[in-house]
Amino acid sequence: MGFHDECGVVGIYGAENSARLAYFGLAALQHRGQESAGIAVSDGKKINLRKDLGLVSEVFDSSHFENLNGSIALGHVRYATAGGRTIENAQPFLNTFKFGTIALAHNGQLVNHGEIRTRLEDLGSTFSSTSDSEVILKLIVRKLVDGKKNDTDSLCSDGLEKAVVDAAGEIKGSFSLCIMTEDCLIGVRDPNGIRPLCLGRIVPKENCPGVLGGDPLGEGGAVKDAGGLNPGGRLSPTYIIASESCAIDAVNGEFVRDIEPGEIVVIKNGELRTYSCEKKNKATCVFEYVYFARPDSVIDGIAVQDARYRMGEVLARESSVDADVVVGVPDSGIGAALGYSRATGIPYVTGIVKNKYIGRTFIAPTQSERESMVFVKLNALKTDLDGKRVVVIDDSIVRGTTSRRLVQILRRAGAREVHFRVSSPPVKFPCHLGIDTPSKSELISSTHELEEIRKEIGADSLAFISIDGMMSALRMCRAESDGFCGGCFCGRYPV
Amino acid sequence: MGFHDECGVVGIYGAENSARLAYFGLAALQHRGQESAGIAVSDGKKINLRKDLGLVSEVFDSSHFENLNGSIALGHVRYATAGGRTIENAQPFLNTFKFGTIALAHNGQLVNHGEIRTRLEDLGSTFSSTSDSEVILKLIVRKLVDGKKNDTDSLCSDGLEKAVVDAAGEIKGSFSLCIMTEDCLIGVRDPNGIRPLCLGRIVPKENCPGVLGGDPLGEGGAVKDAGGLNPGGRLSPTYIIASESCAIDAVNGEFVRDIEPGEIVVIKNGELRTYSCEKKNKATCVFEYVYFARPDSVIDGIAVQDARYRMGEVLARESSVDADVVVGVPDSGIGAALGYSRATGIPYVTGIVKNKYIGRTFIAPTQSERESMVFVKLNALKTDLDGKRVVVIDDSIVRGTTSRRLVQILRRAGAREVHFRVSSPPVKFPCHLGIDTPSKSELISSTHELEEIRKEIGADSLAFISIDGMMSALRMCRAESDGFCGGCFCGRYPV
Amino acid sequence: MGFHDECGVVGIYGAENSARLAYFGLAALQHRGQESAGIAVSDGKKINLRKDLGLVSEVFDSSHFENLNGSIALGHVRYATAGGRTIENAQPFLNTFKFGTIALAHNGQLVNHGEIRTRLEDLGSTFSSTSDSEVILKLIVRKLVDGKKNDTDSLCSDGLEKAVVDAAGEIKGSFSLCIMTEDCLIGVRDPNGIRPLCLGRIVPKENCPGVLGGDPLGEGGAVKDAGGLNPGGRLSPTYIIASESCAIDAVNGEFVRDIEPGEIVVIKNGELRTYSCEKKNKATCVFEYVYFARPDSVIDGIAVQDARYRMGEVLARESSVDADVVVGVPDSGIGAALGYSRATGIPYVTGIVKNKYIGRTFIAPTQSERESMVFVKLNALKTDLDGKRVVVIDDSIVRGTTSRRLVQILRRAGAREVHFRVSSPPVKFPCHLGIDTPSKSELISSTHELEEIRKEIGADSLAFISIDGMMSALRMCRAESDGFCGGCFCGRYPV
Amino acid sequence: MGFHDECGVVGIYGAENSARLAYFGLAALQHRGQESAGIAVSDGKKINLRKDLGLVSEVFDSSHFENLNGSIALGHVRYATAGGRTIENAQPFLNTFKFGTIALAHNGQLVNHGEIRTRLEDLGSTFSSTSDSEVILKLIVRKLVDGKKNDTDSLCSDGLEKAVVDAAGEIKGSFSLCIMTEDCLIGVRDPNGIRPLCLGRIVPKENCPGVLGGDPLGEGGAVKDAGGLNPGGRLSPTYIIASESCAIDAVNGEFVRDIEPGEIVVIKNGELRTYSCEKKNKATCVFEYVYFARPDSVIDGIAVQDARYRMGEVLARESSVDADVVVGVPDSGIGAALGYSRATGIPYVTGIVKNKYIGRTFIAPTQSERESMVFVKLNALKTDLDGKRVVVIDDSIVRGTTSRRLVQILRRAGAREVHFRVSSPPVKFPCHLGIDTPSKSELISSTHELEEIRKEIGADSLAFISIDGMMSALRMCRAESDGFCGGCFCGRYPV
Repeated sequence: MGFHDECGVVGIYGAENSARLAYFGLAALQHRGQESAGIAVSDGKKINLRKDLGLVSEVFDSSHFENLNGSIALGHVRYATAGGRTIENAQPFLNTFKFGTIALAHNGQLVNHGEIRTRLEDLGSTFSSTSDSEVILKLIVRKLVDGKKNDTDSLCSDGLEKAVVDAAGEIKGSFSLCIMTEDCLIGVRDPNGIRPLCLGRIVPKENCPGVLGGDPLGEGGAVKDAGGLNPGGRLSPTYIIASESCAIDAVNGEFVRDIEPGEIVVIKNGELRTYSCEKKNKATCVFEYVYFARPDSVIDGIAVQDARYRMGEVLARESSVDADVVVGVPDSGIGAALGYSRATGIPYVTGIVKNKYIGRTFIAPTQSERESMVFVKLNALKTDLDGKRVVVIDDSIVRGTTSRRLVQILRRAGAREVHFRVSSPPVKFPCHLGIDTPSKSELISSTHELEEIRKEIGADSLAFISIDGMMSALRMCRAESDGFCGGCFCGRYPV
Repeated sequence: MGFHDECGVVGIYGAENSARLAYFGLAALQHRGQESAGIAVSDGKKINLRKDLGLVSEVFDSSHFENLNGSIALGHVRYATAGGRTIENAQPFLNTFKFGTIALAHNGQLVNHGEIRTRLEDLGSTFSSTSDSEVILKLIVRKLVDGKKNDTDSLCSDGLEKAVVDAAGEIKGSFSLCIMTEDCLIGVRDPNGIRPLCLGRIVPKENCPGVLGGDPLGEGGAVKDAGGLNPGGRLSPTYIIASESCAIDAVNGEFVRDIEPGEIVVIKNGELRTYSCEKKNKATCVFEYVYFARPDSVIDGIAVQDARYRMGEVLARESSVDADVVVGVPDSGIGAALGYSRATGIPYVTGIVKNKYIGRTFIAPTQSERESMVFVKLNALKTDLDGKRVVVIDDSIVRGTTSRRLVQILRRAGAREVHFRVSSPPVKFPCHLGIDTPSKSELISSTHELEEIRKEIGADSLAFISIDGMMSALRMCRAESDGFCGGCFCGRYPV
Repeated sequence: MGFHDECGVVGIYGAENSARLAYFGLAALQHRGQESAGIAVSDGKKINLRKDLGLVSEVFDSSHFENLNGSIALGHVRYATAGGRTIENAQPFLNTFKFGTIALAHNGQLVNHGEIRTRLEDLGSTFSSTSDSEVILKLIVRKLVDGKKNDTDSLCSDGLEKAVVDAAGEIKGSFSLCIMTEDCLIGVRDPNGIRPLCLGRIVPKENCPGVLGGDPLGEGGAVKDAGGLNPGGRLSPTYIIASESCAIDAVNGEFVRDIEPGEIVVIKNGELRTYSCEKKNKATCVFEYVYFARPDSVIDGIAVQDARYRMGEVLARESSVDADVVVGVPDSGIGAALGYSRATGIPYVTGIVKNKYIGRTFIAPTQSERESMVFVKLNALKTDLDGKRVVVIDDSIVRGTTSRRLVQILRRAGAREVHFRVSSPPVKFPCHLGIDTPSKSELISSTHELEEIRKEIGADSLAFISIDGMMSALRMCRAESDGFCGGCFCGRYPV
Repeated sequence: MGFHDECGVVGIYGAENSARLAYFGLAALQHRGQESAGIAVSDGKKINLRKDLGLVSEVFDSSHFENLNGSIALGHVRYATAGGRTIENAQPFLNTFKFGTIALAHNGQLVNHGEIRTRLEDLGSTFSSTSDSEVILKLIVRKLVDGKKNDTDSLCSDGLEKAVVDAAGEIKGSFSLCIMTEDCLIGVRDPNGIRPLCLGRIVPKENCPGVLGGDPLGEGGAVKDAGGLNPGGRLSPTYIIASESCAIDAVNGEFVRDIEPGEIVVIKNGELRTYSCEKKNKATCVFEYVYFARPDSVIDGIAVQDARYRMGEVLARESSVDADVVVGVPDSGIGAALGYSRATGIPYVTGIVKNKYIGRTFIAPTQSERESMVFVKLNALKTDLDGKRVVVIDDSIVRGTTSRRLVQILRRAGAREVHFRVSSPPVKFPCHLGIDTPSKSELISSTHELEEIRKEIGADSLAFISIDGMMSALRMCRAESDGFCGGCFCGRYPV
């Protein structure tokens, strides 16, 4: 469908160098998308925007920040889906309309954008991209304009907030949104909370001079008296909304809390208000824990790395094997490997290294070169593996191709036995909520039995964590035991 | 002096797609230098060259390979020393002279290039860079021309080989060289073997179809009948010479052996010959094991990761501490942390993650932003550290600035105690043999006592591995116990 | 107000390589705008777009044309107004809406876009730029959607045509538009015909082999059976709509006729239909003849170069002077200089040359360097001028700065007397219809008397053509004597 | 042979902003070469260099000038010969050697560089390009080193000057050189004076405030007390050496004189000295006058435009024709057309315009598109030509292809008769002295009779100026009647 949108969003409110804080935050979220990057900034009157294809560090140079002044900023990084590399789909989207300007950044994927788009088109709306995110932006504007048709007032916050709440109630699917106008920043998370979104703040710390102190990120980086009046001399904090808590850490901020499923957080005049659209069962995407999020992030009360340790432990219990060493496939398989080692006592070794310089622009013109690229990307350590019985833990098997190569690399390094363990259940159904999975016919677990897959990838044994096992692993991390979407395993989606 | 030259070199002999193999090899060596990259290729008659500032993936796109045809290739990546980012110093250096064309790539640093340059200038040599590597190239050419002054022959291999052997005997310092002419490839390692250099080959494997089989890297990637005559129908192998064995793995080759200190390896007409210049005591740079080389490389019989495990083990014995978890500073501190954990039984946890997208072009215009960059580069995992007594292992302390930030980050994540352990001895002397160290006055271990350093970085305890301990760690990895340069610890250099 | 829009537009209908024909046409119109360039192409189902800042030759390389397939194309080049260099304002604008996709390219400037924008915003429209051109696009869409609200049909041409006709009747100002949908191309010219727009076709010429023959511009460049049915086997021509006839020549087409003021030309199903919105008095901008258009273009029946010759002739009669040579300031002053020479018998000499390589990216960091840039841009020929009494003809004097430098350059080359003649009347009022003129206070003719200006620029004598003289010159070129806008001379505008 | 070197050189001595003056000078010489551009600058101690492929305005941006400080500068633009677009051949060439650093920029082509290169290679010289210009640089260095072998002095000017004089006496061919060391600037012109080179100065004019005054080009642009001691308070002038006098005009300098054939001009310590190598018969390339040089330049006492007028006049006398209008092919045919008109009384009209935006990067992927490019590059004015008998003057016919297209374009614009006149004699022999001509078999005048060529290009009549006529035209411009190379017409070369 072309709407896969594994992305990262960040919003900053109340810092003079908000664009650069957004830049730092986006850098921390770069793993969520490498196709395009963009930052919109408001100086209170006007919103300026810079976006382009490329990594955060490629899209922005010093000169761009000269035009990105203001205390409210919005940033977005976008995932590189095949074929869709066009500047038109880069975010944030920015639109000027009757009451001002609005910019929006979206992580997620709608399931009913088609019908909403049709409805908006019936009312005369136009679109400049194929993105479902633009549909959300136009829907909000439409609601704003309709809600104030006979009104001569300028944009009052009530109107905007109502429009966003109403829009959030209409769209279906996964959506974590950051929205800004000239004077406010809004965070929205879908009623199931499928994609993560969290809130932080950067507080001046007078008693802690130096880098952790009052001005963590440059000239006036910390604090801005956003609302004019600060009774009692209290300083307003700088707020940050981000896809993952690691972005809050990157600007030396403090994690406050997750945005709740169905919650709308509005920051305006230096104050934060919260609204709810219809709340549904929480259904956070388990793949955020399995491989998508950074290990140093905490999502909905579960530390990502902790979840990975636990999955490894459960996997160890479910499918132990007599072996000499445990290795994890970098980067996201390492946590589960450590957990597996911890649970079994089999020593964890590095075993595999990944070349971090192989990016989008690395070339391999011929087919056989593309196939051989795996040797450039991954290598195994003979010192860890030679003559050993090896348990290797990967986060998932999708098509099986990479897994087969991986087994070859391990054997090339002398592994006597290769026992393949997967820290997520078999992926049998494509995701319609934002993860870039191939069609059902390309999912090896959808078309092959376990033993067939084992043969295909050339391992001595193969086991996936069970769905129950995965849930129990997550339960170990958080008291509240439910609330995950595992649609790709079982075919039942929350939306 | 501006000649710091921590670089990577790779040479390919006997593959039709030699330039692309060199490209893959350079990608594997990218960690050794990110300033510039270059590849020279010979088609037997003419050597073409492409080099520029930037990463391997930035310097080359598909169009460049259209002009890089031939079966012998030479590649180089160069380290980004401050201020010296100029295209003039990019390698390989290429010169045409009386008997043909010669290209040279160098990893290391000479100590007597000044006097040789003066001598060559007296004879009329000209230079287009400030690089000591260009001095080596001109010296070889001078010896070649002098050696054959009254000769009407074209370049005979004896002449070239003699010239290289003579030149290698004259230059002092650290040098691992790859040299090519129109029809041969040469590898040279300095008499002390300070920088690594090794030999591999890519052998067609008829009995192993698929990716590991006969044509590992594309159309004709594997084998070329280089010498015309192959008695008995035996196929000539493709040879590869590289700074580290990980580059051999990247082209799916087989490691053959290290080039010996003082050895000159010449590959010509499909055959490999070896020569020696004066051999001295082996003195491999210990920092190759500590942090410079990739963990999957094997240097002089010691697997780099194994060395790191052992250093961690020795460190554990030398300076154990009561703690709850062990963490390693990525990427090179992880091996020692695993070793420390293994020796003490204190659990290893991930603890710290590093943002792999922060490169040369990431901007931080203000001073306080540059200081805050550490929060973007590194983050700690509360789930691993909160309330814990933490042992953190880094590979070295140079100026101390980064270490101080690191301790702050760990404490921010809740570490109750931070015990800083360093897997190399205190660096008290600048390196004159290729490692980019600051002047003595900036080396914190040169100007401060241990307890002062501990206070400065804010750790609860601090310990370095001892020089003897480091040597014993290396001894555990290899029978032969001597042969390392630790000049930066003790001030005694092999040259 | 920042809406200055001296631009060039081109539309191609019915050629397989329509995007490349548009590219060639834009190259011919490059003099009308160097800030940005863009081409949209329809393959019948989908419209693809490429636009960016820069010259036509900078914005497009071969790879872009791989994604620009289809037989209908729309191109735009935009003028570089100071400060407004943003990708957001680059054209064509492209919007998808209820009934399909529409792209628009605009040359001109509206005077009532503010009120229309407000009206559209009241109805919920959003904008992604500050351009008045985007307002036109949204207005058309709005009319389309409103006109077919209760309709279940897909976009019928009647609807589109009616919408465009209605929109053209509502907007006020200068506008030459090229519009395309998936299956049609439309040209619109404002009721006063202020900016030029003309129609051409590319006809296969079977009886003329060679370059002028059937396939003038490549594989299928000439002819496409656009409508399916071609009674009598007649081939459909390829149509071209362009700002100036020189773009028709550039694709080896035939000029058909000017689009009439207030005319809407619709090309669809291989047929051309024409509509009218309210027609007003023709008021073509005289500056198109004076300097804006290319000398090889013909606008509204007047060959631009012919107009310039005539202006020179009239100027000669109005303000003759005893002199030795006549020179014209390149490029647009040359025609008038030739006319002046012809009328007076004073020999025409080259006298001044202009450096054609000085573009947007030429740098002159300091103020005095910027002032000295005139010596790099223009130079005088001593051989033509030394010791001579010189008549120099320029097309206009705006601020007077350039004229003063020019006189200095002529004197430096030895001119004994410099008689400055201007082929347009004094510019006393800013233009609100698309020409980039400064505010009234900066217009030297608005603030200074003739003699003051003469002193200011340092000429021995100074004369402008009179308004009547200019009109009589244009009358010489075309029977129909009226129909020009000279608002900048007299302050009376047609709109 | 690949050594075609129609280039432009400029040298600046004694201005603080010498690099920017060189930049302005190169911009004025851009017509001499568009492949690459480079500037070397000395601050008295060190020479910095920036060069790259591209136009002057593309190669340099503001940031580059931050590293180009100093009062002596050397600039070069290089012609785009097919296939040879490599950074290796970009100039200036810069070499460091025994006594310092030397940079060289060359316009011309040697005929004996092969033997000199061999000789230098025998002595051990190495080369990094295939350029004959690098051979000159190495030859000078060799002479310098040899001349001072037993000398312990640093580089004394005598040595350098002697070396340059000796080298200039050894190399054969065409060469206009600009050479610089840390503290001096040298201009060299070959003994035949085949390529132009001239000297100018920029004098502070205290009595002329404003732009023409003391500081014409910025902070300290004008004057620098180069020699320390200026007895009597006289200010030292800034010197400029350039390929053409138009570059002197571009920096608002004063033309002093041509460098004489065989002359070496050395500027050092604020003083100018002159030397001679063996002087031969002057043999300036006539094509400099015909089309290569800018019309506003004066070469060897002949104003280029004056020469073109005269050629037109002679052509008129030699081959008059009954016609209605005369047109010149831009840019270099215009002068001759004006002369033809003047001599015959047939009115000169513009007739043809050239699109100045069509450069190196303009794309035309298919063959027929490339052929049609002529319509994009050139257009004819119907208003000037329709129904007329046209004399069209071009500067030369080489292969004939362009001429044929030109005739077609004229006829397309309605020309009733096309009489083709050429302001240079038939080119029958390739040039070995720097003009980029094809091989003899591709020269249409070498393989076809006049009438055959006329038919081939489709003209109604065709005539070339005679060799004698051309010489008489040049004689009209300068008393001294001899001294031109016309080897391409008659096959007799001065070298």
